[in-house]
Amino acid sequence: MNILIYNEGVHDKEEWMKQIYPEGIHGALKQALDFDGNNITVTTLEDVEKVVTEDLLDKTDVMLWWGHCAHGQVPDCVVDMVHRAVLKGMGFIALHSAHLSKPFTRILGTSCTLKWRDDDRERLWVTAPSHPIAQGLPEHFELPREEMYGEYFDIPKPDDIVFMGWFAGGELFRSGCTFTRGYGKIFYFQPGHEQFPTYYDKNIVRILKNAVKWAAPMVRREQIGCPNSKPAEAGKD
Amino acid sequence: MNILIYNEGVHDKEEWMKQIYPEGIHGALKQALDFDGNNITVTTLEDVEKVVTEDLLDKTDVMLWWGHCAHGQVPDCVVDMVHRAVLKGMGFIALHSAHLSKPFTRILGTSCTLKWRDDDRERLWVTAPSHPIAQGLPEHFELPREEMYGEYFDIPKPDDIVFMGWFAGGELFRSGCTFTRGYGKIFYFQPGHEQFPTYYDKNIVRILKNAVKWAAPMVRREQIGCPNSKPAEAGKD
Amino acid sequence: MNILIYNEGVHDKEEWMKQIYPEGIHGALKQALDFDGNNITVTTLEDVEKVVTEDLLDKTDVMLWWGHCAHGQVPDCVVDMVHRAVLKGMGFIALHSAHLSKPFTRILGTSCTLKWRDDDRERLWVTAPSHPIAQGLPEHFELPREEMYGEYFDIPKPDDIVFMGWFAGGELFRSGCTFTRGYGKIFYFQPGHEQFPTYYDKNIVRILKNAVKWAAPMVRREQIGCPNSKPAEAGKD
Amino acid sequence: MNILIYNEGVHDKEEWMKQIYPEGIHGALKQALDFDGNNITVTTLEDVEKVVTEDLLDKTDVMLWWGHCAHGQVPDCVVDMVHRAVLKGMGFIALHSAHLSKPFTRILGTSCTLKWRDDDRERLWVTAPSHPIAQGLPEHFELPREEMYGEYFDIPKPDDIVFMGWFAGGELFRSGCTFTRGYGKIFYFQPGHEQFPTYYDKNIVRILKNAVKWAAPMVRREQIGCPNSKPAEAGKD
Repeated sequence: MNILIYNEGVHDKEEWMKQIYPEGIHGALKQALDFDGNNITVTTLEDVEKVVTEDLLDKTDVMLWWGHCAHGQVPDCVVDMVHRAVLKGMGFIALHSAHLSKPFTRILGTSCTLKWRDDDRERLWVTAPSHPIAQGLPEHFELPREEMYGEYFDIPKPDDIVFMGWFAGGELFRSGCTFTRGYGKIFYFQPGHEQFPTYYDKNIVRILKNAVKWAAPMVRREQIGCPNSKPAEAGKD
Repeated sequence: MNILIYNEGVHDKEEWMKQIYPEGIHGALKQALDFDGNNITVTTLEDVEKVVTEDLLDKTDVMLWWGHCAHGQVPDCVVDMVHRAVLKGMGFIALHSAHLSKPFTRILGTSCTLKWRDDDRERLWVTAPSHPIAQGLPEHFELPREEMYGEYFDIPKPDDIVFMGWFAGGELFRSGCTFTRGYGKIFYFQPGHEQFPTYYDKNIVRILKNAVKWAAPMVRREQIGCPNSKPAEAGKD
Repeated sequence: MNILIYNEGVHDKEEWMKQIYPEGIHGALKQALDFDGNNITVTTLEDVEKVVTEDLLDKTDVMLWWGHCAHGQVPDCVVDMVHRAVLKGMGFIALHSAHLSKPFTRILGTSCTLKWRDDDRERLWVTAPSHPIAQGLPEHFELPREEMYGEYFDIPKPDDIVFMGWFAGGELFRSGCTFTRGYGKIFYFQPGHEQFPTYYDKNIVRILKNAVKWAAPMVRREQIGCPNSKPAEAGKD
Repeated sequence: MNILIYNEGVHDKEEWMKQIYPEGIHGALKQALDFDGNNITVTTLEDVEKVVTEDLLDKTDVMLWWGHCAHGQVPDCVVDMVHRAVLKGMGFIALHSAHLSKPFTRILGTSCTLKWRDDDRERLWVTAPSHPIAQGLPEHFELPREEMYGEYFDIPKPDDIVFMGWFAGGELFRSGCTFTRGYGKIFYFQPGHEQFPTYYDKNIVRILKNAVKWAAPMVRREQIGCPNSKPAEAGKD
């Protein structure tokens, strides 16, 4: 698979975060997805406009997106290309605070707003145990520290709610949701706050692996357009 | 109900179209929805930027949108406001070639492309007979002349497919589809080509009436945002 | 509205339960739904075979079902009639341990199994705030004592998940789910363990009221069958 | 894969049908699915009670079901086992008039009634082009003679409508629908009337192959039950 990882990479430069993710969040994601000879490209806000081209996206099976404080700085031309690539078949995985990223809200069309609070304890439950993304996971597992994201989460009705998050502080959340848009498969996954080493957790790594395998396209659309068509019945007359 | 009708109103100025819709498509829609004392505002491309304000949208229960050749000329600020109003609860009914209108594609996030051909005969089938929008309709009815819109229609999975269209030329289409986005209800309805008097058909009028009643909000959201929340469990500690 | 309440009424005869529900669970439900001149019929396991007839069901707008320890004793002929009535348009509200009742599992076709534990504290979150059943409810509210029902809940994908339950013991649950089957609307609602006075809670009462209004049919089907039909195109040849 | 084909095999014994399906419909299905070393078991009404055991079903990846005039003669114990096997993960493909078969209506819970007429011409359209079952198919293809099945089709809302059927006589139908129930994947596929050689059509064969691959379980459930569970939070206290 050809995998493309976008991490805005802003927090990652601060000292406190280097304690948690020495190679940045993109480094941890790359490590998690380094299996079966996957070809992984990494980009951050600094070079996203150079790296992300239509050519690259046409060859990309799945793109992952992590962003938080710099959503507004992502160039619209990149967002346009990513949006179009998803409709043509590229898988797209929006991680944690990417719920407010330009490509995710563009693809889903809703505000994707939610309730949040720093630093809680989360238990993730599998609510669609036969879904490919849930394979090999226990019926529930725990993240000792994670940012709380709570309902109401303003998303379109998901195809499947694979995981729901329970928070010790009293909230719950549709934490792992799938969508189909055009030919593309989309997975939103809530865990992954920059202050905690979530992307090293073995269950989280398993979910990321499952998710890229699930989201990779079986078929792509070449063109997006409205063809003027002759009557299908013409040959019959 | 407060109803807002947008018709781009470009074709409507041509002589051939005055034969079909002397008062414009907006005139025919207004006539169809003039029941139960509805308060109906009409706007066209010429004045849409002046007429459509946040204040007006906050009071509007349902907006209808007809557009075809001038989608690109609709100001983005109007689209932003309409999009936001839908997420806050305003109903939105996209008619015929509004499948490619800015607000509809913005709200749904897909290309909304389809296959088309001028001038066919359509039979509409009710495929969700207990849905409010289907009330009072026969199990199928016919439009002697209508533009063919055919699959594949690139929309997100609808909540309900209330009508499907059968075309004599050999195609079929998900002609009447509902969606929920945020607090808003959306209905896409395919018939309504400018060359035929579709909006005077008694079954079509019945569907439009049913649809505005269905799409009117029961409740609206005041704010769209991501509140930082205290633990729901706080009072328990 | 014509409302029919079935409560198996077995626990209700024991002394400990009379402390909680002096009139039985059916009594509390009847009291909750006694608004707008509703015509309410009550039946228990003792007389269900006599009371529930096709005539009664044809006139019933919404049936509520509470059962726990005597699911197996409900006569199959009653289940057949209720099943058929739902497909023809009657609303059906399955309460608490009715997840394993004969009519509910018959209508949904899955095992409807779940995880459970006595006596926890539950917080219910509204996850579809614009749904009619959620009107007038706060974004969350609490039941100080309720039986825990946890995921994985083996139900078909709901149309809407209106409420989700958070349990202090660490679980969560799709507590308020809607389904459509044939012309009938179905609502499953998890709270209502016989050991706690849940059906006197003002938020629960509000939900029950909203639910019967939502589930009442707008239209009913007279017949269920497979008609041999002449070609719709016949008149055209 | 282990594949189990049930064909009631009643019409198949008549002379006229031997002209079309010399080996019976089960023979044609077996031939279509004889790829990649699949292990295929065939059963008919005559021996279904002997052949279909829990052991066999536990090892079966996908079961196909064709039935028409002898639905009522299928023993309920077989239906119980098949139903349970699907909820545990076995794929199930209901073909043509199996819409009224005991296992299909049991699994879906609705009447599965529809409109029908002998001998029409059908054009099948792909309405979910990125779905695994649609791979390798043209955007539409034709069956020169097929029984007409028309809407309203009384099924629960499908997960995906992969194919829709257009009939020359003026009707349309949700011809290829997927469902998930428990851990099992279900596909209903309308073409396959006993009077026409539909199961030899190369597009139909392709769809059958795609469907069994899609329906095969990735994971199975061992047990179906309601466990009494200790608090997930217990270890935390």
